[in-house]
Amino acid sequence: MNTGKVTLVSAGPGDLDLLTFRAAKAIAAGDVLLIDDLVNEEITTLKSAHARVVKVGKRGGCKSTPQAFIQRLMRRYALQGKHVVRIKGGDALLFGRAGEEIADLRHAGIAVEIVNGISSGFAAAAALGVSLTHRDHCQGVIFVTAHLRDNTEPDWAALAATGMTLAIYMGASRIDSISEALSRTLTPDTPAAVVQWAGTSREKRLCATLGDIAACAAEQHVASPAVILVGGAIGEAMAQVSARSEPMLQRLSA
Amino acid sequence: MNTGKVTLVSAGPGDLDLLTFRAAKAIAAGDVLLIDDLVNEEITTLKSAHARVVKVGKRGGCKSTPQAFIQRLMRRYALQGKHVVRIKGGDALLFGRAGEEIADLRHAGIAVEIVNGISSGFAAAAALGVSLTHRDHCQGVIFVTAHLRDNTEPDWAALAATGMTLAIYMGASRIDSISEALSRTLTPDTPAAVVQWAGTSREKRLCATLGDIAACAAEQHVASPAVILVGGAIGEAMAQVSARSEPMLQRLSA
Repeated sequence: MNTGKVTLVSAGPGDLDLLTFRAAKAIAAGDVLLIDDLVNEEITTLKSAHARVVKVGKRGGCKSTPQAFIQRLMRRYALQGKHVVRIKGGDALLFGRAGEEIADLRHAGIAVEIVNGISSGFAAAAALGVSLTHRDHCQGVIFVTAHLRDNTEPDWAALAATGMTLAIYMGASRIDSISEALSRTLTPDTPAAVVQWAGTSREKRLCATLGDIAACAAEQHVASPAVILVGGAIGEAMAQVSARSEPMLQRLSA
Repeated sequence: MNTGKVTLVSAGPGDLDLLTFRAAKAIAAGDVLLIDDLVNEEITTLKSAHARVVKVGKRGGCKSTPQAFIQRLMRRYALQGKHVVRIKGGDALLFGRAGEEIADLRHAGIAVEIVNGISSGFAAAAALGVSLTHRDHCQGVIFVTAHLRDNTEPDWAALAATGMTLAIYMGASRIDSISEALSRTLTPDTPAAVVQWAGTSREKRLCATLGDIAACAAEQHVASPAVILVGGAIGEAMAQVSARSEPMLQRLSA
């Protein structure tokens, strides 16, 4: 029997129309779909009739399906000659453990293809109506995870000192300590925002400053899964909000 | 007459099947399409029969259509009641001057919607078969433009010191000075890659080290438009290349 292959498909932030055509084609071509937990379940409507669906949730710190088991499953199906489609939220190449999965599959001699998608930091900026890199404010953007393997913290002072927009993933549950750490380098009036469920019908967005973002998020119950955005470029959204006298918390219509 | 609106549509890196469904729908709904120069021209096959196409190229430093003129054009058509679709390569919210365009349109009272897309840094990582943030190597990724408004340089030492993967846009023409600047902080054996025309049928990729990337790029004529990737996570591609004894320069089949 020939060895199958694995396609890592990025499902984007959630809404199915934020999928790429290539992602939809890959899903339709798969024999086995391994689906992460933050992926919109409606995605299975795109599969072929014979395809098997396996949910392999593994959210934040709580490992409902251990990574090693997911990798074994992929290898097993691929070595049976199946086309395995591994579906991850956002873009698989940003904070998705794809690095480990690719290395493992290559080691087993299994071909891997990758299909890109929209990462939630981009969807969050679109929800706020701001560029991540407005050139009046910065030269770029840093995507960083607040959830480090060894439970240490990123070097917030060094990141803040770059002057770039920060897009912080998996940080909503510790927004108080993160904003406090950033405030040692950035001024408290630095624009900050949190977007929960960016790019989905459940989207909630909150614009504030570094000084009050944690309190606002707590008050408004804006929690995981969410992206925190910090920097001058994000202030373009706040300018808009205050000019239109809208409430701080806005829920976009779908 | 009612005021029209503007949709900023991200066309992704080039291949039409890397468009999102939402982008394709927006293009089909537009009355006037304003198209940037690095966007695949085949995208106009998605337009409605009545839609007008205006090419507004403005590539790198050479301004074939000044930004102010593009903004006037958008305002004019929108104030005539048209649905203007402004199509930008990659994701419009990363290095696309979208920040200025959004501010200008809001100031004129014109509604703006944003549709995300795949930025070329993500397509470059997919081409190399690497995660941008393999957690054995880093906590995140920095997207930075080498083309600053005032002709200064980003603070390469500070960026390198963060230990994050660097995705450098618009730097191919100065890859020698950039790699030299980064070498003051990072060791010369730090993995580096250049991907030209990532996510298109013309894609070329080159894997090397920080010490020899500039010479390799010159030798192999890998030039703009290209993304430079630097960091340990990118070394996962080099490991693969050397293990398979493939030539340094690889051109993916489409």
